[in-house]
Amino acid sequence: MPECGLLVSAPGKVILHGEHAVVHGKAALAVALGLRTFLRLRPGGGERLRIHLPGVGVRREWDVAELRALRGRLTGGANACLVLRAVRHCTGCPERSPSPPVCLCFRDVPSVDITVWSELPTGAGLGSSAAYAVCLAAALLHACGAISCPLKDGEATARWTEEEMTLINSWAFQGERVIHGNPSGVDNAVGTWGGALRYQSGKITSLKRVPMLRILLTNTKVPRSTKVLVAGVKEKILKFPAIMNPVLDSIDAISQECQSVLEAMPTNPSPEYYPVLEELFDINQHHLNVIGVGHPSLDRLCRVTASHGLHSKLTGAGGGGCGITLLPPDATPLAVEAAKRDLCACGYECWETDIGAPGVTLHSSSSLNAQVLHALSES
Amino acid sequence: MPECGLLVSAPGKVILHGEHAVVHGKAALAVALGLRTFLRLRPGGGERLRIHLPGVGVRREWDVAELRALRGRLTGGANACLVLRAVRHCTGCPERSPSPPVCLCFRDVPSVDITVWSELPTGAGLGSSAAYAVCLAAALLHACGAISCPLKDGEATARWTEEEMTLINSWAFQGERVIHGNPSGVDNAVGTWGGALRYQSGKITSLKRVPMLRILLTNTKVPRSTKVLVAGVKEKILKFPAIMNPVLDSIDAISQECQSVLEAMPTNPSPEYYPVLEELFDINQHHLNVIGVGHPSLDRLCRVTASHGLHSKLTGAGGGGCGITLLPPDATPLAVEAAKRDLCACGYECWETDIGAPGVTLHSSSSLNAQVLHALSES
Repeated sequence: MPECGLLVSAPGKVILHGEHAVVHGKAALAVALGLRTFLRLRPGGGERLRIHLPGVGVRREWDVAELRALRGRLTGGANACLVLRAVRHCTGCPERSPSPPVCLCFRDVPSVDITVWSELPTGAGLGSSAAYAVCLAAALLHACGAISCPLKDGEATARWTEEEMTLINSWAFQGERVIHGNPSGVDNAVGTWGGALRYQSGKITSLKRVPMLRILLTNTKVPRSTKVLVAGVKEKILKFPAIMNPVLDSIDAISQECQSVLEAMPTNPSPEYYPVLEELFDINQHHLNVIGVGHPSLDRLCRVTASHGLHSKLTGAGGGGCGITLLPPDATPLAVEAAKRDLCACGYECWETDIGAPGVTLHSSSSLNAQVLHALSES
Repeated sequence: MPECGLLVSAPGKVILHGEHAVVHGKAALAVALGLRTFLRLRPGGGERLRIHLPGVGVRREWDVAELRALRGRLTGGANACLVLRAVRHCTGCPERSPSPPVCLCFRDVPSVDITVWSELPTGAGLGSSAAYAVCLAAALLHACGAISCPLKDGEATARWTEEEMTLINSWAFQGERVIHGNPSGVDNAVGTWGGALRYQSGKITSLKRVPMLRILLTNTKVPRSTKVLVAGVKEKILKFPAIMNPVLDSIDAISQECQSVLEAMPTNPSPEYYPVLEELFDINQHHLNVIGVGHPSLDRLCRVTASHGLHSKLTGAGGGGCGITLLPPDATPLAVEAAKRDLCACGYECWETDIGAPGVTLHSSSSLNAQVLHALSES
């Protein structure tokens, strides 16, 4: 471990197409977001495990001997889920799983100081908990020697092997189970592998390749309940099956078409690739309204960006929450700034970022910007 | 014929659901509009056939002997289409049919004065030409004794028998062929039978029964080409068949669902019947946007009425043109007035009327309002 400690990051995620339809067996495309969670792990002192989240003002610590004893008390072939249980307590996340799965165990509970800081807003459907779980899994697996340190001297960033990432992902998934009860596994997969993933009927596959695309991510800040929205869609399908099922089929075809377009795009796509992507955004936004997960705040978001020639759709649960806006390479900085200004004037929060970002990454300290380094240096 | 002459009216039409989808073999629902065309036929003098359309400032007349001679020159088993050809010339309608069908023939070209006045705007997709053709067919068939005079002394209005209406409709269809070349026959059928019709793959069937529903009809006055819009939809279907064909299926199911709801509604439906109709409006409006026939003016129309709790959709070709707004019985007059005011403030023209209106009707002069009577009394 370098002197500055181990520096790890993982991206958040957005759903590009297929939100809600995925619940009904259709495909969804999830993409890694340019906004990331960063973690620094340093050797700790005094046989304590310390976790500090300066961004949300949370600081917890446990006696490593007590955690080891707790692990010892857990029964069966089951290993302990000490660390992530600690994380759950630490983050104040309520236990949603009625019978928490045994989820994360290290042979030795290490004595370490962990600091986590995120660019991702929490509770906005952007996979912040998964990015956190991925960072934690990678850092702890590294701390106990289960995975290598691929970062060579002088390199800014490095990534683990496929095999190591599979291990990181499986531990991160257990972490997600502690936090969410019954997660789909998509968020931690995106956090681990980055790029874009297709998810259908429980099967997750990486897209062959996907370019980084500039977007605006906008949080309307309108609170909503994913559970209520999912139930509402189900109710609509039961009420009007002949009207709604074709809409789900159409959304499925949109995900398929989008996947084909993304896989055919070069790394630095020229503007001519965008009209189809924009058309698919517009169509899906209408479909999402049809299945009942739209919201006036999202209509407004779309209208505001349309007035600057930009195309948007809701992402995730809908009913408020976040929207994404494509920024084609020929969108002028002036138009983008004007769109951001108008969105902020609506009371929305707006990030200019990208999708198709890399997954879990090991960093040299020189590769992180000053803000991140500053946040992680708080102890 | 009463002394005041024969007074006939026929309704315009709007498409409730299925516009564009009908071109691709799906069902459409067409309903009779509360806005009507009125015709007065009086015995003429001097062996002349005179037609006067005071609303559009058109006045034409022909020598009956010349018309008879013209008919005589037409060949084959074919009868002459004198009267409607005269009408075509009279209205300045260009000949669209490459080989004009033999369309309307009366054994004797009558010497009559005809005045026509309409509440319907022309060229707005509201079936004004069909309402005109229906009125003309009914009046001329009556004038030459081919159909009865069902209006009894003291009655305000009367309608013809099914058999007589079938005759009126077939002549009106020939009139439409002269005007439009290759009409679907829906507009003249709605003008003749009124109420609501289902149209699919060339087959027209009347809905069992349909209540009169109050609506706002709004003309955005944005000009559009039906031909270009139809071609655009076809292009979208060819471009994205897997995305677009399910949308057409969904529209088809909307027409089916709407038909079921309408047929189950009592004559004076209570407000509880409306939420489903409104939901179907909202869904179809999204679908029509998806297939590419929306327009900012129509989005605005929907937004303006939504701000007053009312639901709208485009009707007909889209791309501008007209929209309809449901007015449930519990919509307050204040809300309706406010919606009309706001729509007019957008530069739109707005009528408070109804759908499900009666078809071709014979009137006593006392059953017509002063404005209509005044317009028809111009000579």
